[in-house]
Amino acid sequence: MTTRPPAEIGMSLAEVDTPALIIDLDAFERNLRRLADRVQQSGVRLRPHAKTHKCPVIALKQIELGAVGVCVQKVSEAEAMVYGGVRDVLVTNEVVGRQKLRHLTALAHSARIGVCADDPAQLADLEAAAAEAGLKTLPVHIEINMGGNRCGVEPGEPALALARLVQDMPHLSFAGLQAYHGSAQHLRGWAERQQAIKGAADKAAMTRDLLAANGIRCDNITGAGTGTFEFETASGVYTELQCGSYIFMDADYGRNLDRDGAQTRAFEPALFVWATVMSRPAAERAIVDAGLKALAFDSGPPLVWDEPAATYERASDEHGRLGITAATNRLKLGDKVKLVPGHCDPTVNLYDWYVGVRGERVESVWPITARGAVY
Amino acid sequence: MTTRPPAEIGMSLAEVDTPALIIDLDAFERNLRRLADRVQQSGVRLRPHAKTHKCPVIALKQIELGAVGVCVQKVSEAEAMVYGGVRDVLVTNEVVGRQKLRHLTALAHSARIGVCADDPAQLADLEAAAAEAGLKTLPVHIEINMGGNRCGVEPGEPALALARLVQDMPHLSFAGLQAYHGSAQHLRGWAERQQAIKGAADKAAMTRDLLAANGIRCDNITGAGTGTFEFETASGVYTELQCGSYIFMDADYGRNLDRDGAQTRAFEPALFVWATVMSRPAAERAIVDAGLKALAFDSGPPLVWDEPAATYERASDEHGRLGITAATNRLKLGDKVKLVPGHCDPTVNLYDWYVGVRGERVESVWPITARGAVY
Repeated sequence: MTTRPPAEIGMSLAEVDTPALIIDLDAFERNLRRLADRVQQSGVRLRPHAKTHKCPVIALKQIELGAVGVCVQKVSEAEAMVYGGVRDVLVTNEVVGRQKLRHLTALAHSARIGVCADDPAQLADLEAAAAEAGLKTLPVHIEINMGGNRCGVEPGEPALALARLVQDMPHLSFAGLQAYHGSAQHLRGWAERQQAIKGAADKAAMTRDLLAANGIRCDNITGAGTGTFEFETASGVYTELQCGSYIFMDADYGRNLDRDGAQTRAFEPALFVWATVMSRPAAERAIVDAGLKALAFDSGPPLVWDEPAATYERASDEHGRLGITAATNRLKLGDKVKLVPGHCDPTVNLYDWYVGVRGERVESVWPITARGAVY
Repeated sequence: MTTRPPAEIGMSLAEVDTPALIIDLDAFERNLRRLADRVQQSGVRLRPHAKTHKCPVIALKQIELGAVGVCVQKVSEAEAMVYGGVRDVLVTNEVVGRQKLRHLTALAHSARIGVCADDPAQLADLEAAAAEAGLKTLPVHIEINMGGNRCGVEPGEPALALARLVQDMPHLSFAGLQAYHGSAQHLRGWAERQQAIKGAADKAAMTRDLLAANGIRCDNITGAGTGTFEFETASGVYTELQCGSYIFMDADYGRNLDRDGAQTRAFEPALFVWATVMSRPAAERAIVDAGLKALAFDSGPPLVWDEPAATYERASDEHGRLGITAATNRLKLGDKVKLVPGHCDPTVNLYDWYVGVRGERVESVWPITARGAVY
């Protein structure tokens, strides 16, 4: 049932069928190394988020460059990672429901598996599942609400209360705080992001100190994303970074501003949707074969990489309309173009294969084994 | 690489893992029969669009109730249909590129395969591919622009010019007009939709008559969707209906108004995303485990079927935040809820399996073999 790969190794890019998810391997490898190098000098650990790439091949490359393991959001993503050879996975999310807990604890026989919680009832269920699976101990992070008002207990006393509960459970161990500030990632201004992460680090530090004052050692404060990691790194509070999108970037992250007020150059666009102009019914528009089933639109439309003056104006399920009045490349019928997705993670979730391209040649075709891993 | 099914046949709905794509089989079968019955009395043919369900099991049920075949938008969807036993597939779209044309013409050895065109260059390539594949004749519809300004030539002379070209090609045959008016489907008012389809039917009839005046017989004018089919049926112009969403409905189609000004009752919601409340960090919000990777948001957020007073306020990749201030069911941690997707087609494209539920019992688990079929 998996879709056939759109390419064969050795093909030229021009021959790759469309829509296809293309990795520019040179840019991707520069992104990988750039973060690895910065983290190596910093004293914090890197645990990249695999929810971006959903591919153990990439996870192992990150680990080879120094990452301690990966994060995922879903138990089924953790399964794909462990089955693909990753030995240390943190589920940065609450896990609720009998099947999910059974799958989670089964995995813990093959790898170090951590999990998050924000509710006493979750802890009771985790304890029962860990005991049932015969685990010695399952590491649990308490998730604290950094201001995004999604999951997470409030910092301070509510987190302390949960950490105490964890310590009382014979098959659970308190592993630290999940302190990811998601809503800070796309604040456009450098100073805004810095300020937001200062607030997050203060909340995490206050909670850590409260835990310590109550005899609970907090060895790990984990969080950070591609938009803010330099602030968590410099905070002296965070011990682990969870960046995901840095490997690929996307149009939305590309709109973040660096310290100098220019569009960010921290990482390079390395992920593209390869699309064909399939209809040219009028002078001012070109229709491409990549719409809602080939691109995520939650963070805006894609950019046209090869022709920035063309505008992706409207998506329908299987079509995209490019306005090309201003374009200099007239985008003829049959031309293929690279689109930069608005948002990389949910775009990747639409594909079964990455096509890795070096220059103009297909070098690799990697299965996205956690595609659709929503459980 | 296909995600494991979230259910086993015989399970209770409560046991089904989440997020899962659920079909209410009773409602689904009523929808299937309702359109089949209306079409049977009308003199037009039904060729449902399989881009909605992407599942040959469902296509065969439609054909069993009288449909002449199905439509698809992509060659790879056509492959999934033919491999699943469908013998008559119309690709309601232009097909551009060597691989796609080879796959398309290869299929034509196993089934009746039709295709659309809106450009002389496409016709030349179709002719070459049909000849290379040793086909006697490949049926081609000329797509005309009904006002959506996507693909399609203008009605009248431009369509005539293309139909003439088709007739000149030894391995192609002119099969009719593709005259789908997509942008009329979600006009909310009944009279608005009626008016839009009157315009579309006039353009199609004018083109048909021009073809006839030039000695070209046009046997098929195909189009229509769930929002407008009654107008195409009554037009005396359209000969074939391409409705897709009627089997499932969605929140967006549910906002269309019937003749009496009330929300449409033409079909029933039959497709749901089954989700779990995975965090209850504050009194006013419940976090479910279905976000951007489990639901399409291009036509708005899902509705909460079991608790209409709850509001799906915000999606992130793997989470949905429900505002529950007004809700009477307090949506406790671990509760499972049915969400009505905003838009059915791209939501289905996120899943590998349908879980068919009769009452509270899982009756079927169907593979969505054209999931991700974007080529």
